[in-house]
Amino acid sequence: MYVILVYDMNTKRVGKMLKLCRKYLNWIQNSVFEGELTKVQLENLKAEAKEIMKEGDSLILFKNREQYWLQKEVIGEEKSSIDNFL
Amino acid sequence: MYVILVYDMNTKRVGKMLKLCRKYLNWIQNSVFEGELTKVQLENLKAEAKEIMKEGDSLILFKNREQYWLQKEVIGEEKSSIDNFL
Repeated sequence: MYVILVYDMNTKRVGKMLKLCRKYLNWIQNSVFEGELTKVQLENLKAEAKEIMKEGDSLILFKNREQYWLQKEVIGEEKSSIDNFL
Repeated sequence: MYVILVYDMNTKRVGKMLKLCRKYLNWIQNSVFEGELTKVQLENLKAEAKEIMKEGDSLILFKNREQYWLQKEVIGEEKSSIDNFL
């Protein structure tokens, strides 16, 4: 499935979370990632994220069966090199 | 349409962008917003955002005809009070 992930982490743990998210997804902006994951990959990502996260940290996942349904538009600087326009 | 907005702004301009986004959308995390917008509202939001933005700033919009297609999951602290689980 297609996943958008956004985190809001304490700066102490942000490096770890960035590394984890990059393992599974494409980085598109600051703390925003997107990519195609299997159900198992998503479960693994969530489990690993929970191990890193502490009080006050937050992670939001938007899940979509098909990327097709979601249109992405970037205004201003495109931070990642992945061309993912639909 | 259902819109997810994520911005990455210079701290000098972040306050203005926050205020603008809150005018149109619901704040869900740090620099992440979501909500239902008409085509006209979206165009207005984009035009106003472009007036605030300068070099290095970035805004990503994910647009979906129906919120129904997108499933949201929050791990850790839920920063907004809006209950928007599907």
